[in-house]
Amino acid sequence: MDKMILDGRIWIQTESGPFLGYGRVELLEKIGDLGSLRKAASEMKISYRQAWDFIDQMNKRCDKPLVEMGRGGKGGGGALLTEEGHRAIKLFRSVDSEFQKFVERMNKKINK
Amino acid sequence: MDKMILDGRIWIQTESGPFLGYGRVELLEKIGDLGSLRKAASEMKISYRQAWDFIDQMNKRCDKPLVEMGRGGKGGGGALLTEEGHRAIKLFRSVDSEFQKFVERMNKKINK
Repeated sequence: MDKMILDGRIWIQTESGPFLGYGRVELLEKIGDLGSLRKAASEMKISYRQAWDFIDQMNKRCDKPLVEMGRGGKGGGGALLTEEGHRAIKLFRSVDSEFQKFVERMNKKINK
Repeated sequence: MDKMILDGRIWIQTESGPFLGYGRVELLEKIGDLGSLRKAASEMKISYRQAWDFIDQMNKRCDKPLVEMGRGGKGGGGALLTEEGHRAIKLFRSVDSEFQKFVERMNKKINK
């Protein structure tokens, strides 16, 4: 039969609901790079409103905000990735890296 | 902050597309238990047609069919899980069991 390919996804939630997933973490990373929620949303091809909602939700699920958001409007919309935000990215990427290793290991196993 | 909960899903595909996932494997298991595609579809609350398509697709991605399907119609619709089908279930469940252990290990790690 054809070669089998194992794949999958992981995410982190809290008891209140979704917290970190591939999309949310990419959004945090882009905010870190661009310093702007509007630019980050645009690069991810999601609406400003959706990006804002994601960040607002993530911030509410933490003691300290992951992103500090400036005011909107002309010349506004700046967004700062906090230390807590950097930590969240690092946590998710490290768990995902372990997951990718798991997937690789299993792919070898199922095609032996 | 709230306790973080890592979760995820895995699936197996071939180069032609989807092959085994949680729903498909549950369908195979129910066919094994019930000997009927119609009853299996009904227990899973999916249409007969959808169940048939899933099985047809899985069968086409293997050298040997996972399920041998009888004719439809009155008194028909019997379905037999083949040895290949049993093997596919076992493979997926064993990979998923490793994945669940991975998730458990990571959940301890991220909440330390």
